[in-house]
Amino acid sequence: MENLIRFGEKFFDELEIAVYRSREVSASVELNEISMASTRSGALTIIRGIKDKRLGLALIDSDDPDKIREAVEQAAKMARLNSPDDRWVSLPEPGKYREKPKPNYELKEASPDVLVEKLVKGIKLAREKDENAIVAGGAGGVSWEERNILNSHGVDVFQEGGAAYMYLELVGMRDNVVTPGIFDFDARRDLNLDVDGVVERATQKVKWAYNVLPSKNEEVPIILGPWAIAGLFSFALLPAFSGERLVKETTPLAGKVGEKIASDVITLYDDPFHPLAIEPVIADGEGVPTRRNVLIENGTFKGFVWDNYWAKVYGTESTGNGKRDIRSGGISIGFHSTVIEKGKRPLEDLIGEIDRGYLVDGLQGAHSSNPDNGNFAVTANPAFLIEDGEVKGASVFLMAGNVYELLKGASEVTKEQTVMPFMATMITPHIKFENVKIAGK
Amino acid sequence: MENLIRFGEKFFDELEIAVYRSREVSASVELNEISMASTRSGALTIIRGIKDKRLGLALIDSDDPDKIREAVEQAAKMARLNSPDDRWVSLPEPGKYREKPKPNYELKEASPDVLVEKLVKGIKLAREKDENAIVAGGAGGVSWEERNILNSHGVDVFQEGGAAYMYLELVGMRDNVVTPGIFDFDARRDLNLDVDGVVERATQKVKWAYNVLPSKNEEVPIILGPWAIAGLFSFALLPAFSGERLVKETTPLAGKVGEKIASDVITLYDDPFHPLAIEPVIADGEGVPTRRNVLIENGTFKGFVWDNYWAKVYGTESTGNGKRDIRSGGISIGFHSTVIEKGKRPLEDLIGEIDRGYLVDGLQGAHSSNPDNGNFAVTANPAFLIEDGEVKGASVFLMAGNVYELLKGASEVTKEQTVMPFMATMITPHIKFENVKIAGK
Repeated sequence: MENLIRFGEKFFDELEIAVYRSREVSASVELNEISMASTRSGALTIIRGIKDKRLGLALIDSDDPDKIREAVEQAAKMARLNSPDDRWVSLPEPGKYREKPKPNYELKEASPDVLVEKLVKGIKLAREKDENAIVAGGAGGVSWEERNILNSHGVDVFQEGGAAYMYLELVGMRDNVVTPGIFDFDARRDLNLDVDGVVERATQKVKWAYNVLPSKNEEVPIILGPWAIAGLFSFALLPAFSGERLVKETTPLAGKVGEKIASDVITLYDDPFHPLAIEPVIADGEGVPTRRNVLIENGTFKGFVWDNYWAKVYGTESTGNGKRDIRSGGISIGFHSTVIEKGKRPLEDLIGEIDRGYLVDGLQGAHSSNPDNGNFAVTANPAFLIEDGEVKGASVFLMAGNVYELLKGASEVTKEQTVMPFMATMITPHIKFENVKIAGK
Repeated sequence: MENLIRFGEKFFDELEIAVYRSREVSASVELNEISMASTRSGALTIIRGIKDKRLGLALIDSDDPDKIREAVEQAAKMARLNSPDDRWVSLPEPGKYREKPKPNYELKEASPDVLVEKLVKGIKLAREKDENAIVAGGAGGVSWEERNILNSHGVDVFQEGGAAYMYLELVGMRDNVVTPGIFDFDARRDLNLDVDGVVERATQKVKWAYNVLPSKNEEVPIILGPWAIAGLFSFALLPAFSGERLVKETTPLAGKVGEKIASDVITLYDDPFHPLAIEPVIADGEGVPTRRNVLIENGTFKGFVWDNYWAKVYGTESTGNGKRDIRSGGISIGFHSTVIEKGKRPLEDLIGEIDRGYLVDGLQGAHSSNPDNGNFAVTANPAFLIEDGEVKGASVFLMAGNVYELLKGASEVTKEQTVMPFMATMITPHIKFENVKIAGK
């Protein structure tokens, strides 16, 4: 690889070579049956070279040195055709990494059989627990990735690791009621996926969902679950912490460092080293060391996150949040594992104290939230009505508002924390919000 | 491959092996610059085996015989764990194919350079034609695919071919007006992508879009362009022709063969052999010969399309519409190249006769249309106001209705036909619809 960097320096003032080798086995469920088992593996090399501030970026799905040389030449041709980017400063310098977590090599060679067995067990268990439920969908996967990021300033970092995940989607059909799709999931850095827990939680929610109740316009306490929180925050809140948005003036958090933007119970940080994190990387997509970046501490906004490019445009340092998009090859500001700090009491205590309110499992429509101001309009579904401290049944309702208003009304977080592995990884407790206005549907 | 079929017969009553080898070079544009050049290639083998009506489906991203044997065993294990599908009849028998079109081998070895050059030319031309326009995005690609589909009944069909495509997205900024993203595209089975045509059409639309005009509630003639038609029909109309939906009773066309469902000017068929088609396959994803399937002839509904499974469940024959999803490995009913028959007069004649109406380039929100009944609610954007036979400027408005009502109001189709290569391939003229109710925005 070092040789390839030297080769690239013939064409570029500076360059980066990132090699990704991956393997993923997976299996899927459709209508109570295993529908597919798959094994995929491959290599991808991304060349980013800069000559006279002109960028060339080439991708090749190989780690063969000859092919990489071709891609370097491809990137060089491209750089010549592009205009200079006057804001370009430089690629990152080497940094000091934390100690690498020990990879779990059983994930490297996993067979799809493991997943097929777990999913078959999940289907069997779910149908035993609820004969009126079908497992409409589901999937499991074990992924393994090796990353080597080098640049001509001396960055040279190798990482490897893997994770396993599964989810099931149940639909209950009883007495003319067809429940919405009810999801539950698990993700971890070993093969001990908690099939029983997934089925237990999912069948409990299906059971609640059989009792369909009307919703109405009211102002009530709402408890959002991990799936709902990850959906809403990914689109309405997290983009606002991006330094690129600070430069482009499209974040409502500009000038608010040190200000209160949420209630005391909310502490939010990004850290791939959290024990539940499924990708404990020591370096980001351009080789900058990762670290724990606090975004909100007891309600107070602590600062933005940066990749190398936007940090240097703004005159600050990368926070290790340069994420590489494997499809486009590009680096953009993103998160590794956002964590919402957990609380002291279990979910059942919170539910037990609510006279009338909702436990919301999923939010639909969160993707059309506006991160420029935090406004959102979503449908809560599935949502479970709580009365007199107990879940009584399921409803659907609309919630439109502003994520910062919502955060100011947060009153408690549960002691249970769940890792939501889909979209951006988020590790979060359930959060209770007071006086949320909802519209019946 | 024959040997592998024999190997698989040890495990299965019948089996299918589908091997896909592909190569794609591509390049992308962001903000007037080339942002990426990419070369990707790979092989994928999909095993579908049936034992006692139990299905096993395994994917492996390799065409190596040893790996394929492993995948066969994987599929066999899976089949044993699944329940029997009592509706399963059999895999397809061999059929008679049309003559293969001659592949264009220049597409097989194309370099990303070709695309980079065309995109650079497009950016340069666009900025020469309109100094206030930026090329916000764009991409070009050349893909090549080799498919070999075999089954234990003697199906053995090999096909190869490729296509090139490009699109540009322009945004104009002038006098405090920022136009919406304006798209144009080309796709063909050779490398002569029409860069001039793409830029010509896109800059013309940007020019129209600088003059922002209000919209209002009214009933007017509307001309839909290829992008708008492909978007709306893909979601609101085409699924209704699926035989699976006939079996499952989720199509409004059940029992309507021979009935009038559109005005006389509408003739719609699916045929990968249309001269403009970009994927002229002789066999579908399970090796059944493709053919010209007429869906609507001069307004009359002619029939449904089928894959092997649903055809046999219903007691009819596959129409060669089994499409394979490369991600899940599964077969489902789909289209190769849907074609709307062209008319006699050019678009400019149709525009010239409109006193007040709209030329609609894009429709947003078509994906939430309901194919069970044809209802849709979309935002027309970009849409161009026509007054006194001339385009006067751009508006945004809402259109909510039913696709069959719309089709009954179709009054003319243009003589120009365009291939829309994104989503499902659709080859279509512009279509004029009379008395369309729109809501100003």
